[in-house]
Amino acid sequence: MKTIFAEIITIGDEILYGQITNTNSQFISSELDKIGIKVSRQVSVSDKGNDIKNAISDAETRADVILMTGGLGPTKDDITKKTLAEYFDSGMHTDEKVMEWLHNFFTKRGRELSDLNKMQALVPDKCEVIYNDWGTAPAMWFEKFGKIFISMPGVPSEMKNLMTKKMIPKLQQYFKTPIILHKIVHTIGIGESMLAEKIADWEDNLPQNMGLAYLPNYIQVRLRLTGMGEDKEELEQKMQLQINTLLPQIEKYVFGFDDDTLEQVIADLLVEKRKTISTAESCTGGNLGHLFTKIAGSSRYYEGGIISYTNAIKIKLLGVNPATLDEFGAVSEQTVREMAEGVRKKMGTDIGLATTGVAGPDGGTNENPVGTVWIAYSDENKTIARKLTLVNDRLQNIQFASLLMLEFTRKNMN
Amino acid sequence: MKTIFAEIITIGDEILYGQITNTNSQFISSELDKIGIKVSRQVSVSDKGNDIKNAISDAETRADVILMTGGLGPTKDDITKKTLAEYFDSGMHTDEKVMEWLHNFFTKRGRELSDLNKMQALVPDKCEVIYNDWGTAPAMWFEKFGKIFISMPGVPSEMKNLMTKKMIPKLQQYFKTPIILHKIVHTIGIGESMLAEKIADWEDNLPQNMGLAYLPNYIQVRLRLTGMGEDKEELEQKMQLQINTLLPQIEKYVFGFDDDTLEQVIADLLVEKRKTISTAESCTGGNLGHLFTKIAGSSRYYEGGIISYTNAIKIKLLGVNPATLDEFGAVSEQTVREMAEGVRKKMGTDIGLATTGVAGPDGGTNENPVGTVWIAYSDENKTIARKLTLVNDRLQNIQFASLLMLEFTRKNMN
Repeated sequence: MKTIFAEIITIGDEILYGQITNTNSQFISSELDKIGIKVSRQVSVSDKGNDIKNAISDAETRADVILMTGGLGPTKDDITKKTLAEYFDSGMHTDEKVMEWLHNFFTKRGRELSDLNKMQALVPDKCEVIYNDWGTAPAMWFEKFGKIFISMPGVPSEMKNLMTKKMIPKLQQYFKTPIILHKIVHTIGIGESMLAEKIADWEDNLPQNMGLAYLPNYIQVRLRLTGMGEDKEELEQKMQLQINTLLPQIEKYVFGFDDDTLEQVIADLLVEKRKTISTAESCTGGNLGHLFTKIAGSSRYYEGGIISYTNAIKIKLLGVNPATLDEFGAVSEQTVREMAEGVRKKMGTDIGLATTGVAGPDGGTNENPVGTVWIAYSDENKTIARKLTLVNDRLQNIQFASLLMLEFTRKNMN
Repeated sequence: MKTIFAEIITIGDEILYGQITNTNSQFISSELDKIGIKVSRQVSVSDKGNDIKNAISDAETRADVILMTGGLGPTKDDITKKTLAEYFDSGMHTDEKVMEWLHNFFTKRGRELSDLNKMQALVPDKCEVIYNDWGTAPAMWFEKFGKIFISMPGVPSEMKNLMTKKMIPKLQQYFKTPIILHKIVHTIGIGESMLAEKIADWEDNLPQNMGLAYLPNYIQVRLRLTGMGEDKEELEQKMQLQINTLLPQIEKYVFGFDDDTLEQVIADLLVEKRKTISTAESCTGGNLGHLFTKIAGSSRYYEGGIISYTNAIKIKLLGVNPATLDEFGAVSEQTVREMAEGVRKKMGTDIGLATTGVAGPDGGTNENPVGTVWIAYSDENKTIARKLTLVNDRLQNIQFASLLMLEFTRKNMN
């Protein structure tokens, strides 16, 4: 099977000036990677006709598919469409379906369809128009000597929808790409190299048509198993067998699969077990509450929290014993246990969680250097605490402690 | 004055596979933009020798400076250094200063300096070694026919330090770039186009050597005034005069200048006025507390918060009157006022803040559709509430409401 090569061209001065991060190239690359198309180059050029043409003709010498984003707006800076018409030596005409869509789009929003906006319906004769159900600029699909040229708007939400819902299926059909499946295993609390060591034998013995990628994101590492084959069901089964062999070796680090997030996994567990939860936060300062409440529907199980940044509030609102704070300090197993128990009782929830630690940059001591965090889980049967030794960065300490608190909850919930 | 053109080449398969976002290109572009060097192209290629060489020779035909990142690690995948030596037809030698640095680097961390790591000290004869005080791979500076070729490690923290502390001053000296100064005005609560309309006259009348950029980030828009000149002090003064003319026109939207962030501005104000603060959060669910506590030293003024996700907790912990909730509902001016007053008294702080609203996607009503949020500020003299009409996205509603609560605090604090 011949490898299909792709190049991506993002068009727009705002990228070259460093005003925005180029997330479009990453998204397109990752979508193409999933169907086995290999991206060999990403290029960003300005909104100048010649720069765009040069980039396309360069790419054409190397790649089978050239995907472009940007420069499709109605203003005079946006010249991608005109440039493509010139490049392919094509006339232009008005696409009636786009015009109708524009009429509806503007009428619905109570805005007038200006002559400038009507220009969006003008398309090159030599392209297939790919309708954009998420915005006003249609996408274009050109074919030339078996090579494909795709132009999409630069607005990320429009591009993403066009890419996943229209371009990917079309590319799969055109290039008859093989069946490619992915299975993702989400881990937390183990580094990439340690994980790689643990599963080296398994990885070495994967069949030829499967490959593994490590996708680390700080304390979380995603393992992505990719398989290629002719029969979808058979491939699916064989990959699942591999995952089943893998899991027992890393069980204690795995919290989910595929599209799961740690936050959503905890949310689903709480709903399933009909448990309510509350939080008492010192060093995480509200971020743990935020991780719960950013999930839609969280009011079903998350009742509330207390951010106790001072000892006085730990005593008054959480019922921590002043003697505990005196004897052991705010960053201690004893205090964090009383905080978790206190918030659970105060809020009347099934589960109470607590964090207290030294996020930094100041406040570190010999006994509790920056990065020392205690977390605790409490329910009607037990209260369990754990000490974390994190890093030398305030924001990372807040994020890591919050995520590890979620993971600790997952493990201890019955 | 001749324009200096630059191209950026980022090297590494993880970018082409879409596994990481290419933030290096953005950072380098934005730093070059600040000193008046124009980036005309950004390219990402794989870790293959030929791909790298082709990208460099392409770039050489167009640009005056070519900046590369990535491929400088000690493993066999990392071939940028070897490729550059071949490209410039150069031998290699061991740089004693790098070797000594490596010895110290590994000794300090209690690790052994392996033969593989010693390879990091091997450098092409034809380059100037630019020492990397933040990691193990040195950077390289090549000159050829008046063009500059720079190679830096791909690790963002190392690249950023090398770029700002070493490469930028060296490039300014080499190309004798003019003095370029920037002044940034931070606004919140006004859209880009409305802002542009308000200051159109001022912008049109800027002198030839000054230009304005709009850098929007959701509800915040940064205005960046860039000036070019020969005399730093004179330029600085003239730009300040322009800013002084601008400010009265947009005063109510401006919260800071240059490196300011809204969180830090509020933090500084609270310290300066010796005020303490606490938060009562419903729809923002802890995110407001997080914005306060992510700032180092926030325990000086932030005492704590209550995340009251249920009515029961609003009543029990914040002292909201059950009759208020019955009559007006949780998302109402009356409730948010009682929440802000309640948390202020409960926590014993000078200021109390409160948020309550419909973040979505569910929970919207005719009266309070998704995106309706009430915020309140309370101190010993007054309690003031404001209704926000935000968007149809849960996470954005949480973020926007939190930021607008900060801005509301800034405006109402005496």
